[in-house]
Amino acid sequence: MQSGYTHLFIPGPTNVPEVVRQAMNVPQQDMRAPDFAEFTLPLFEGLKRVFKTTNGEVMMFPGSGTGAWEAAITNTLNPGDKVLMSRYGQFSHLWVKMAEMLGLDVICVDVPWGAGVPWKEYGRILGADKDDEIKAVFVTHNETAAGVVSDVAAVRRVMDECFHDALLFVDGVSSVASVDFRMDEWGVDLAVTGSQKGLMMPAGLGILGVSQKAMAVSKTARMRRAYFDFEDMVNINRSGYFPYTPPTPLLHGLRASLDLLEREGLENVFARHARLAEGVRRGVKAMGLDLVAEHPSLMSDTVSAIRVPPEVDAREVLRIAYEELNASFGSGLARLAGKVFRIGHLGSFNEGMALTALGLAELALVKAGAKVPLGAGVAAASSYFAEGAQSGLRLAAE
Amino acid sequence: MQSGYTHLFIPGPTNVPEVVRQAMNVPQQDMRAPDFAEFTLPLFEGLKRVFKTTNGEVMMFPGSGTGAWEAAITNTLNPGDKVLMSRYGQFSHLWVKMAEMLGLDVICVDVPWGAGVPWKEYGRILGADKDDEIKAVFVTHNETAAGVVSDVAAVRRVMDECFHDALLFVDGVSSVASVDFRMDEWGVDLAVTGSQKGLMMPAGLGILGVSQKAMAVSKTARMRRAYFDFEDMVNINRSGYFPYTPPTPLLHGLRASLDLLEREGLENVFARHARLAEGVRRGVKAMGLDLVAEHPSLMSDTVSAIRVPPEVDAREVLRIAYEELNASFGSGLARLAGKVFRIGHLGSFNEGMALTALGLAELALVKAGAKVPLGAGVAAASSYFAEGAQSGLRLAAE
Amino acid sequence: MQSGYTHLFIPGPTNVPEVVRQAMNVPQQDMRAPDFAEFTLPLFEGLKRVFKTTNGEVMMFPGSGTGAWEAAITNTLNPGDKVLMSRYGQFSHLWVKMAEMLGLDVICVDVPWGAGVPWKEYGRILGADKDDEIKAVFVTHNETAAGVVSDVAAVRRVMDECFHDALLFVDGVSSVASVDFRMDEWGVDLAVTGSQKGLMMPAGLGILGVSQKAMAVSKTARMRRAYFDFEDMVNINRSGYFPYTPPTPLLHGLRASLDLLEREGLENVFARHARLAEGVRRGVKAMGLDLVAEHPSLMSDTVSAIRVPPEVDAREVLRIAYEELNASFGSGLARLAGKVFRIGHLGSFNEGMALTALGLAELALVKAGAKVPLGAGVAAASSYFAEGAQSGLRLAAE
Amino acid sequence: MQSGYTHLFIPGPTNVPEVVRQAMNVPQQDMRAPDFAEFTLPLFEGLKRVFKTTNGEVMMFPGSGTGAWEAAITNTLNPGDKVLMSRYGQFSHLWVKMAEMLGLDVICVDVPWGAGVPWKEYGRILGADKDDEIKAVFVTHNETAAGVVSDVAAVRRVMDECFHDALLFVDGVSSVASVDFRMDEWGVDLAVTGSQKGLMMPAGLGILGVSQKAMAVSKTARMRRAYFDFEDMVNINRSGYFPYTPPTPLLHGLRASLDLLEREGLENVFARHARLAEGVRRGVKAMGLDLVAEHPSLMSDTVSAIRVPPEVDAREVLRIAYEELNASFGSGLARLAGKVFRIGHLGSFNEGMALTALGLAELALVKAGAKVPLGAGVAAASSYFAEGAQSGLRLAAE
Repeated sequence: MQSGYTHLFIPGPTNVPEVVRQAMNVPQQDMRAPDFAEFTLPLFEGLKRVFKTTNGEVMMFPGSGTGAWEAAITNTLNPGDKVLMSRYGQFSHLWVKMAEMLGLDVICVDVPWGAGVPWKEYGRILGADKDDEIKAVFVTHNETAAGVVSDVAAVRRVMDECFHDALLFVDGVSSVASVDFRMDEWGVDLAVTGSQKGLMMPAGLGILGVSQKAMAVSKTARMRRAYFDFEDMVNINRSGYFPYTPPTPLLHGLRASLDLLEREGLENVFARHARLAEGVRRGVKAMGLDLVAEHPSLMSDTVSAIRVPPEVDAREVLRIAYEELNASFGSGLARLAGKVFRIGHLGSFNEGMALTALGLAELALVKAGAKVPLGAGVAAASSYFAEGAQSGLRLAAE
Repeated sequence: MQSGYTHLFIPGPTNVPEVVRQAMNVPQQDMRAPDFAEFTLPLFEGLKRVFKTTNGEVMMFPGSGTGAWEAAITNTLNPGDKVLMSRYGQFSHLWVKMAEMLGLDVICVDVPWGAGVPWKEYGRILGADKDDEIKAVFVTHNETAAGVVSDVAAVRRVMDECFHDALLFVDGVSSVASVDFRMDEWGVDLAVTGSQKGLMMPAGLGILGVSQKAMAVSKTARMRRAYFDFEDMVNINRSGYFPYTPPTPLLHGLRASLDLLEREGLENVFARHARLAEGVRRGVKAMGLDLVAEHPSLMSDTVSAIRVPPEVDAREVLRIAYEELNASFGSGLARLAGKVFRIGHLGSFNEGMALTALGLAELALVKAGAKVPLGAGVAAASSYFAEGAQSGLRLAAE
Repeated sequence: MQSGYTHLFIPGPTNVPEVVRQAMNVPQQDMRAPDFAEFTLPLFEGLKRVFKTTNGEVMMFPGSGTGAWEAAITNTLNPGDKVLMSRYGQFSHLWVKMAEMLGLDVICVDVPWGAGVPWKEYGRILGADKDDEIKAVFVTHNETAAGVVSDVAAVRRVMDECFHDALLFVDGVSSVASVDFRMDEWGVDLAVTGSQKGLMMPAGLGILGVSQKAMAVSKTARMRRAYFDFEDMVNINRSGYFPYTPPTPLLHGLRASLDLLEREGLENVFARHARLAEGVRRGVKAMGLDLVAEHPSLMSDTVSAIRVPPEVDAREVLRIAYEELNASFGSGLARLAGKVFRIGHLGSFNEGMALTALGLAELALVKAGAKVPLGAGVAAASSYFAEGAQSGLRLAAE
Repeated sequence: MQSGYTHLFIPGPTNVPEVVRQAMNVPQQDMRAPDFAEFTLPLFEGLKRVFKTTNGEVMMFPGSGTGAWEAAITNTLNPGDKVLMSRYGQFSHLWVKMAEMLGLDVICVDVPWGAGVPWKEYGRILGADKDDEIKAVFVTHNETAAGVVSDVAAVRRVMDECFHDALLFVDGVSSVASVDFRMDEWGVDLAVTGSQKGLMMPAGLGILGVSQKAMAVSKTARMRRAYFDFEDMVNINRSGYFPYTPPTPLLHGLRASLDLLEREGLENVFARHARLAEGVRRGVKAMGLDLVAEHPSLMSDTVSAIRVPPEVDAREVLRIAYEELNASFGSGLARLAGKVFRIGHLGSFNEGMALTALGLAELALVKAGAKVPLGAGVAAASSYFAEGAQSGLRLAAE
């Protein structure tokens, strides 16, 4: 219990905009009412625009992004299928672990945490897979643990170059609706996201984009599934209903969230994320700290994973921020624990929040014993924001 | 868009009490914060009291009750396992369908919709299963589609009488927290419920009670699972955290809901449900209508499935109620469509709501062309309520 | 602390519609922001449509309807001014009391509680007032305590017939936005209402409609005032701002409320109130009870004041309703205490709520010892609703 | 419509804490219910603790602080009474204006905006008032427009030194509950505040502390009043009820607000305000800007009024902050318009919010053309916060 706002800078769940929060504060309703479909059907259309797919299906499962990972796998693959995955952070690691639990034969390319998807190596492996034994290729678009964005288009390119027929699975949990995601253009077959990141809602919906190719494959895929079954979901969704009780408050939140995204304009949303992220990165640099991401091209516009100086433990920084400054930063996960803290700068975010994040990070670092020049990060970000085109800041549809 | 309150008499999602709704209207928070466990651990203890288990584990999966059904199966059974199930309504039917989708060898006892679990037949089958080939016995405690409550204790008794070692699965989705549920006493191994019924929240949490016997079996059960895996969940829950982002607003709602249940007192909650249900049933009888439940002992205290007179289509009654009276009743599902409408009287419910349900049902029936004496149902219920002990109405802990 | 919805049947504050409640759940904002006027100016226009004035001004004072009563007086009258008032219930009584406290010379016509404004007697008095010494004539349009609606047009007629120049003050607290109110047509100079009745919000705004004649008079009126001064308010309102901090959540609620009224259509709102009130009245009659209102033409469409049978104390009925049935009815005020209870049927109200009110009233009466036939009231109201044109029920703008 | 949180740094309405906002999101209720007093009576006790009075009465009028100003005057003074006031900002100016409108004979001591209450001059005037013709002495404790806090104790001292019997009126609108206010110790007779400042709620309640001396005087005071009459209010409050419909959501908010204040501990609340204000002031100094307050002892811990450099118009700074940065600062009022902007740092406020305010102020200033070193203000405040006792930050009652 502390005074003032709790400053939330974790990379999800993200800050819920007021209008979304208002929209979710509804009484319960009959999910079989005659006019329910009038409300739900446009949600599917809106999500398609967010995924940039016109051909694919979108589905919302009550659950988390992890559930959507599972749905993608169990609906389209068969037990023992060979799949190509890579690991460059905790979330790509967990997806590999899940694939193994579900009985897939995983070819896992390990690269350093801080690198992106090893698409060249993928190309080599796929090129060597003359008999198309690899049934699916997995990419974690934005590795939330490392603050790394990967080049999905490049993976598609190497797949195409060797005429490989595998399905392309993309984890877009912390990218969709915040950075550009082009499901159709990139030939993504299974795109996975959740409600609690760029869609600016609480957790509770696992969301999938599914290509027609993946839909076709799902008809014969023999992995056991029921709750996450595509067929039931898609058939009943077609009429605007759900095979089991949906969390209707989240659907109302999604309506408000899609409206916000459309009013700002998706491309403006992406530009805003890029601008705010760049401000944060300049701030981090001015503090004298390094990102986990190994190369500027890999630095995520939705989350920055920041290495603390050797003299401090990142966990202590997080504890001080939480207990003394009423602020939550993302922790370093698994092997990055103690070495890294993260600033989520996605979803409902603006210049003031970026400056707050930097100001509080500096303060928490110094209180934890780090030699960080107070104010330097904020100054660098401010300078960047000050020179920026002002018009970029305004939403499109005012 | 109509004036006044929308009257919600579906058997779930149920009416959310104001304090629960207030509790859910929170900003997002860090689910890895140091003090998060102080908030979450008592939730597990509270749920155990609701399930009446001291030995078992409870788990909350982001998802629906359907997801919890699947979790129960995939964590404790093996592909091809023989299981004993029965069908007496749409939800018991769907559980059978799921079991088959997940590869179980289902012995299904079909009884009329309106009957309860055929425990005598179960006893016969289990007695004949000399080699304990049947690995699990399934009971739908409260068949929401038929308004039928079944005798779980009787099933346990016949299992014990033939010393059968199968696991006992119970669907308590529309019974737990509304009618008496005794997980330990009845030897239930897998108890399943959801957030949107007796727990008086929106949909979004699939909740399980798992006996230690089921936990032990889950260590070696070979059905593929990841999202719904008990081991990960229980291990991480132990410290108050979750393997993936939980829907924190629902956890806050659960806190408020458990507080309400404890203040009223579980036994008082059950007595209230019994009293209100009896009022509704007397009202239905006074209207000259029949319940689907075949015998008084089978009549559910949480939902009444009511046969409409032959001269009307229940769908028309529902449509009129919704469009002209701003009221939602439960529809007749599957084979009961058009013949039945349902009144949910569970969760946050009181005398006034019971009278409203009856009054609006009468009105909708008459508008749909039924020959129902207006006011008769309300009169019968009122008379019953008027004679009732007044003290029963008051919550225990005021 | 009781289970289920609290049934609120007091004649104000009324039940707040969900969309209004959502709209008020906003963070605070700068009431001097450049775009604040874009939000506020249409509120004034909307209120004018509700008052049915195109010539007059409307003002919102942070306060209650009582504050608006005072504003009406202090801005337009001078100390010692002679005014014509009448008393036929607690609220007309309180307005008289206020007028006296504020130093007016009140000619008070007392009529029985249950009668309406004595417009014939007004005509006689005004006709005899050859020198126009009477500066203002007061009418309580809807006497909330007695459930009596008065004929404002008749008062205007008698004023006109004797060419009397007095200002016409009308208390529309429990009529405006629920029953027809024609400020311009009736020549009302000072129309007073509050936020918590037909406008379906919490208390907190005292709202006035002021004719240009009254505005002109206010320039020279010498009663002391500051907080409630018209001039400051109107001048600053002109630009969309307020002379002191307005309760912005209520302004957002007002936006939503006006939207609801306009979507339903004011005339449909009035028709709905008339229909629901008639249902309640038929129910009351079927219970064998009498209204306080002495004649059908006086029966209010927003509140019914009901005499309990001699064998019970209305206070006991109210206590039982509140403590045992989670329902609030309006109490009998002042001389009606113990003899009367009231059902408010205004604002966000529908058939189901009317039936609930009657059903719970019957039950509380019987529990209190009254000989009332249970179900009779509901039956009578239902019969009336059943025969009614269904289309009337639907909002205009769906 | 912009992305991210709207940063609210006006000196009121202040940021409403989440728990207060939750508490206000309630359905309407019967303000005459039997148990209403159980809820309301402790509110009065809590407010007394905030005012630090054990002898006085507290009252809550639906209205604003301006209404409470008027209530203080009209209940205790007589038309034509001589009163001693001073002007050092827009709000002390408006109180003078009100006193004149209400017919008082105001002796007004004008001092520069930026100075505090001229207590020495007050002493001289009161000393010369041998016949106690001055009936009341007015102090604006915290002049919100100038960011100046005045020495109320010094005024009481000079009153006592010349044995003057006048009533002491104190405007504590932007001080009560944020900086120390000692009604009994300072001999304040009429203490005025509102809900939307240190009490962290929306506007809508004008709150008064009234000494027994003032209560006694009110029995014979002859200024006309009705809505704001003490006698009616206090008499009915005594039983926990109100003479007219109170805004119950605000009463629920007040409950939550008082709970927050008591859990943090009033003295800790004051210490927090002092610490955060000092951080802001150091930041302002590091930007090279001056406060309006003329001397450190006058600098308010609740709001800082900051002079912009001559090369920019403060209105442009405010516009840019609002339109481009989604931030609201307080404007320069009246003669300070264009020259001053204000940062409110009262109520629910913490280090992160102070840093955000400074960071966004710098950015808006630079965008408006000011030569302000970006980051300097944040650095200075951060340094101050970094060296501060960490324990001070934590609330008392965790």
